[in-house]
Amino acid sequence: MIIMGVDPGIAIVGYGFLELIGNNYKVIDYGEINTKAKTPLPDRLDIIHEEMTELIKKYNPEDIAFEELFFNKNVKTAITVAQARGVEVLSAKKSGAGLYEYTPLQIKQALVGYGRATKNQVQEMVKIILNLKEIPKPDDVADALAVAITHGSSIKFKESFRMI
Amino acid sequence: MIIMGVDPGIAIVGYGFLELIGNNYKVIDYGEINTKAKTPLPDRLDIIHEEMTELIKKYNPEDIAFEELFFNKNVKTAITVAQARGVEVLSAKKSGAGLYEYTPLQIKQALVGYGRATKNQVQEMVKIILNLKEIPKPDDVADALAVAITHGSSIKFKESFRMI
Repeated sequence: MIIMGVDPGIAIVGYGFLELIGNNYKVIDYGEINTKAKTPLPDRLDIIHEEMTELIKKYNPEDIAFEELFFNKNVKTAITVAQARGVEVLSAKKSGAGLYEYTPLQIKQALVGYGRATKNQVQEMVKIILNLKEIPKPDDVADALAVAITHGSSIKFKESFRMI
Repeated sequence: MIIMGVDPGIAIVGYGFLELIGNNYKVIDYGEINTKAKTPLPDRLDIIHEEMTELIKKYNPEDIAFEELFFNKNVKTAITVAQARGVEVLSAKKSGAGLYEYTPLQIKQALVGYGRATKNQVQEMVKIILNLKEIPKPDDVADALAVAITHGSSIKFKESFRMI
């Protein structure tokens, strides 16, 4: 099955597509959708909607996993990013894929094994689990792959649970 | 010309359609799009997208005016509402209408004449300007009409300005 991971954003939307084959992942594609700060918000949302819809159509993921937004400082930034996330969730919803979301804590626990793992530890695990030569850049792309892996782990866990 | 006003929200999206004829407004329609708190976020966003798209198609507004989001307390609520606003702005963008946004301060100034006006004063002015028998309920609907009137005033102001 193909899983899409999304690190929500407005300037950079990280995405990654993984195929879960048994216990292993095949990397299908990863990258970023970009919009410029000078571009009016409605146009940025439109670009994100169009590009996400195209990507989902291309790879037809069965499940799409989002990182949850978490902000405790700049409310203005949170509002802008959240508007983009709404459009990203809508684009995913329209595809008919199963939708999931994971907190940063859940992602850290899934990849590194404990919730206080550093960003770098998570990224190193992405590299190792996916057998990549380097950590994907920018962070948003590595984060998108991390949330896709988190969803894959969650599926594996449920499957092994069902076997008991 | 037909103006749509939108008071962005997730549980309640207020909307109002006005026709600006000379210096007067003809009330075309107003109401609310509702989604339930128990409904999953992707479904709420989908409902809002579908209903907004349908309304815009029905009345074909030339301009669509949104109230700006303003939060300084609950970031979690702000993130949820902002995700819905993103979808509302996208729905408007797809229609090809001109898009505008106004702050609560601008709305108060346009309707009552000063920025410290109370919510009730703004609503009374909506009733008077649109020659309605009662203040439209809930608040979200009155607010949507207020932002439509604010945009209408802005157009009138620019037109009179051009005449000089």
